[in-house]
Amino acid sequence: MNIKENFPPIIIENLTPEINNGEFPVKCGLGEIIKIEADIFCHGHELIQANLLYKEGHDSDWKSIPMQELVNNSWSAELEIKKELISYFYTIETWIDPFYNWINDLEKKIKAKVQIDYFEDLFDGIKFLDEIAFSYAEQMSQISFFQNYIKDFKINFELIKDLKNFTKKFPLKHFKTYYNKILEIKVHRKAGDFSAWYEFFPRSQGNFRNCISELNRIKEMGFDVVYLPPIHPIGETNKKGKNNSLISEKLDIGSPWAIGNVDGGHKAIHPLLGNIHDFKDFIREAKIRGLEIAIDFALQCSPDHPYVKEHPEWFNKNANGKIKFAENPPKKYQDIYPLDFYNDSAEELWQECKNIVEYWIKVGIKIFRVDNPHTKPLRFWYWLINEINQIYPDVIFLAEAFTMPKPMKYLAKAGFTQSYTYFTWRNTKKEIIEYLEELTQSDMKYYFRGNFFVNTPDILPYILQNASPNIFKMRFVLAATLSSSYGMYSGYELCENIPLGEGKEEYLDSEKYELKHRDYSFFPDKNIMSFISRINIIRQTNKALQLYTNLIFLNSYNENIIAYAKADLKNENIIIIVINLQADSIQEDHIELPLDKWNINENIEYKVKDLLDNSEYSWKGRFNYIKLGENGKIAHIFKINLN
Amino acid sequence: MNIKENFPPIIIENLTPEINNGEFPVKCGLGEIIKIEADIFCHGHELIQANLLYKEGHDSDWKSIPMQELVNNSWSAELEIKKELISYFYTIETWIDPFYNWINDLEKKIKAKVQIDYFEDLFDGIKFLDEIAFSYAEQMSQISFFQNYIKDFKINFELIKDLKNFTKKFPLKHFKTYYNKILEIKVHRKAGDFSAWYEFFPRSQGNFRNCISELNRIKEMGFDVVYLPPIHPIGETNKKGKNNSLISEKLDIGSPWAIGNVDGGHKAIHPLLGNIHDFKDFIREAKIRGLEIAIDFALQCSPDHPYVKEHPEWFNKNANGKIKFAENPPKKYQDIYPLDFYNDSAEELWQECKNIVEYWIKVGIKIFRVDNPHTKPLRFWYWLINEINQIYPDVIFLAEAFTMPKPMKYLAKAGFTQSYTYFTWRNTKKEIIEYLEELTQSDMKYYFRGNFFVNTPDILPYILQNASPNIFKMRFVLAATLSSSYGMYSGYELCENIPLGEGKEEYLDSEKYELKHRDYSFFPDKNIMSFISRINIIRQTNKALQLYTNLIFLNSYNENIIAYAKADLKNENIIIIVINLQADSIQEDHIELPLDKWNINENIEYKVKDLLDNSEYSWKGRFNYIKLGENGKIAHIFKINLN
Repeated sequence: MNIKENFPPIIIENLTPEINNGEFPVKCGLGEIIKIEADIFCHGHELIQANLLYKEGHDSDWKSIPMQELVNNSWSAELEIKKELISYFYTIETWIDPFYNWINDLEKKIKAKVQIDYFEDLFDGIKFLDEIAFSYAEQMSQISFFQNYIKDFKINFELIKDLKNFTKKFPLKHFKTYYNKILEIKVHRKAGDFSAWYEFFPRSQGNFRNCISELNRIKEMGFDVVYLPPIHPIGETNKKGKNNSLISEKLDIGSPWAIGNVDGGHKAIHPLLGNIHDFKDFIREAKIRGLEIAIDFALQCSPDHPYVKEHPEWFNKNANGKIKFAENPPKKYQDIYPLDFYNDSAEELWQECKNIVEYWIKVGIKIFRVDNPHTKPLRFWYWLINEINQIYPDVIFLAEAFTMPKPMKYLAKAGFTQSYTYFTWRNTKKEIIEYLEELTQSDMKYYFRGNFFVNTPDILPYILQNASPNIFKMRFVLAATLSSSYGMYSGYELCENIPLGEGKEEYLDSEKYELKHRDYSFFPDKNIMSFISRINIIRQTNKALQLYTNLIFLNSYNENIIAYAKADLKNENIIIIVINLQADSIQEDHIELPLDKWNINENIEYKVKDLLDNSEYSWKGRFNYIKLGENGKIAHIFKINLN
Repeated sequence: MNIKENFPPIIIENLTPEINNGEFPVKCGLGEIIKIEADIFCHGHELIQANLLYKEGHDSDWKSIPMQELVNNSWSAELEIKKELISYFYTIETWIDPFYNWINDLEKKIKAKVQIDYFEDLFDGIKFLDEIAFSYAEQMSQISFFQNYIKDFKINFELIKDLKNFTKKFPLKHFKTYYNKILEIKVHRKAGDFSAWYEFFPRSQGNFRNCISELNRIKEMGFDVVYLPPIHPIGETNKKGKNNSLISEKLDIGSPWAIGNVDGGHKAIHPLLGNIHDFKDFIREAKIRGLEIAIDFALQCSPDHPYVKEHPEWFNKNANGKIKFAENPPKKYQDIYPLDFYNDSAEELWQECKNIVEYWIKVGIKIFRVDNPHTKPLRFWYWLINEINQIYPDVIFLAEAFTMPKPMKYLAKAGFTQSYTYFTWRNTKKEIIEYLEELTQSDMKYYFRGNFFVNTPDILPYILQNASPNIFKMRFVLAATLSSSYGMYSGYELCENIPLGEGKEEYLDSEKYELKHRDYSFFPDKNIMSFISRINIIRQTNKALQLYTNLIFLNSYNENIIAYAKADLKNENIIIIVINLQADSIQEDHIELPLDKWNINENIEYKVKDLLDNSEYSWKGRFNYIKLGENGKIAHIFKINLN
């Protein structure tokens, strides 16, 4: 038995972040600082040392950052992410430096004025210096100098200090031990963290050519990602009618999520929208405006999809061999055939799914919003996303994972860059704080980036049903400032608020089943486009709002007032957001600012500017009075003036 | 790529208990119930099922216990430990049963009065029954019966119920997935959980023959483990004098922890105590009285230890080749040479350490109290204890790990059955509750069993210095009822309370350096032997007090009153302990009992009996009044009468 190798003295435990014991990478964006912590300890009282080892990409060299010992055998180092679209790798190296220990012991003896004995106390140091000379050949002159001083008993605190600095540069790493895993950090591009999504149905504009003018309006509102529901041919069999009716009429257009007909499937474009050239033009026009197009990736087929004839083996079948409809008993969805991801030819199906994504990547799409990923095998996504990101690291996947918390988290761990969230249903101050603290402060922050949609074609949340423009503004500013990524489906800017019926969360006359013609200039009192535009400009010009994990809630007393702050990593841009959750009423409160965190003197006045209306205030101390609800004022977005 | 194998649909995450990712076993005693929990989930809405798989010992067969689904994808099963001194092994098996899903879907359709179609809804079930018939050949008649009912559309809730029961017995396990590790539970013997230790210096009695009468007294007090400090020859070089003096006089007897001289080392017995036969007699006399002898395992040597001449290579040396004294700079311990566990002949040394333990096991010792384990390599203990327990699973190791929390926990994980704790310094209600909840309710409960020493030869805690017998009783009853294992060093029963000096935690005229002659009949007002005896009888006759993890604290309002309860696993023995932490003063309080947990009706009177003085009370409801401090009454130990 090799004792030093099999039973080394130093223990490294409880390393964080480490997701599912290292099965999945940490995810983050450029410029973030990842704090890496572990418990590191040894028997006895010898001092140990530790380095965080990391490399930027597979093939680069390992670099090291000294870890600092905190209390109670806990060690920490910070890794700044300086390169994007690569993986960082990290682990821990720890060792006992006998020379460093010798210096520290000697220092204690000198301080305690213990009689120094040459052989008991000094000779070891000289020998360790020989060992250093052997390991680092070029240091001989410096070493002789130290050795002579020690030999001559010329030991003082000056020498101790010099020796300590020397050993930092030329450590003797005895009992060197590594952490038992190499862990990964996957760095996505900026849009993975910071994005404002606008969703609209291109068919309501007619075709892709007509959509180009819509891009101008979206750009004016300040969005940066334009997400389109499926643009593919729509099945005829059991086509849905208006308001999700099972019986459709001849002129009904069907749900775009019932993909595929004689004109093609997941790689085809609905003929009425145009052809692939029209779509490429549309993508180019978007790009010219600084907008990026995201498309829907919905892995199911209408009964008319070409796969049904070409690959009947890919579908679920009854015992009598007939392809099964999608069902969630007692409900049946007769316009949809779900795919069987574990059929006997599953590998072909999985490769075809990858081909679909690659096809659209080559057309120019780099963002995919994935429909209902939680109804497909969770490990399928792990496979697909990793396959794609190995070749195209800049491709972003958003999971429409409206499901239970654990599968939702798993999808994020498995690779989705962003995920839909429960924000849509978190309304009270308590609910919002609890949920956001879980998202941004628990270990979820290492792998799950929430994209806060205020509405979707499927969801008109209760809080918005028949609600006033103030409530629409309130929910909008919450989404756009709590998270660095958020989304909105068209119609929101007109405060569309009529549900399908009592207790239903869907829209009346949903655009999923019919065309919508909206006049965005028609209802000036119900049009919040300029408010949206203002918020997006504030987001674009304040770095603090472009980060995800930097959220802190501020103490306040009124249950209807929520207050929080975000700062950039250097505390150069500090934003304080105060929102009236009862946006139609007047609410007052005092909010408490953590001035010490921002190095602001409690006794000196400081200026804050409300970026929503450019009003300025002089504040002093931690507590400040707030009043909202007058003149349609639903929120403050203060920027602290640090001059 | 094998999709079903490499990317199976079901995920198993967050299994507990699992210590350091399965590196270390869970530890427990006979009769305990281990709750095993995990998050188990899958995509889609198909129902999954899961079994806890376990086996009792390496070579036995796997058995299974169905896991229950709780909320939020969390699953649970309870494993009752029915065999001791073996290892249990456990993992999880999970699967999708298509027939079980078919039954559930069919039930929903019938409930919703959906029109049933033979090929859409029924034929699959018939085919699944064929598959069951194929897998479990003997069930043909039952299966035909079911198939005929289904074929004839004779579907009712009675049949559904029968089918559900049938599928429990004959499951179809599609997509069977196992957890990725097999985990271990090491079952120690009863004394690992439940033990009352008495420590004394045999040399103060003269020799082992004289100690036999002391065994009678210890037995009368109700202890079951008798722990002796090192019984080996003591070094002469730099022998310590009284009160740890560096200068000893001729008649000074030295510290027993400075082990070894010309008479022998760790396998020898101090000649004045007797020879090996005397010691074996002493062990036998103890056994006759139901007492077990524990000895000290202190891995260091006096400069006179035979190893120093025979194996100088085992010791730390200065660069000039001279063996180093133990030191913790600026302090030097000149009566001790520490061993170098990583010397070039370390394997010989490690084997010799194992030989020492095996030698004493063969003499008849099965409990080792290990001195300062945290100053030896932590993984050395992992190696040693596992080597020993493989051959002698009934051998118990107690770690005198008075060190930082993380190394202390690591020693327990690595194999120590029990550990000394910080109890000695936890005095206030808040401190006690916080510490005990960590020990008995956090994941520490799976590997760390605290042995609560009220004092040791090294430690006269501040709270006992110059304290009254009431305080001694109070700390005793805390130790003996908070933990199922506790210990006491002799002199405590006489309330010895004089410290070495101001701010020192050691005893004046410590028995570590001189003989002590105590007259246990001399100070009747300071002698708490009968109180100790009473407590030990209560512990022996109430199963609730013999368990470690069953502690719950009760709500109470007075900061000086602490109240807690322990019940056995079947709630047949419920003990309520109420203690006055200011034992010399009168204190009143109301305590709140969790009656619902014990199935006691809030509206009906129930009887409690104080086992300390046999007084009885009729109580009703959750809140009950308590008064302590009168007539030397420092605690109640109530037993609830459940008739």
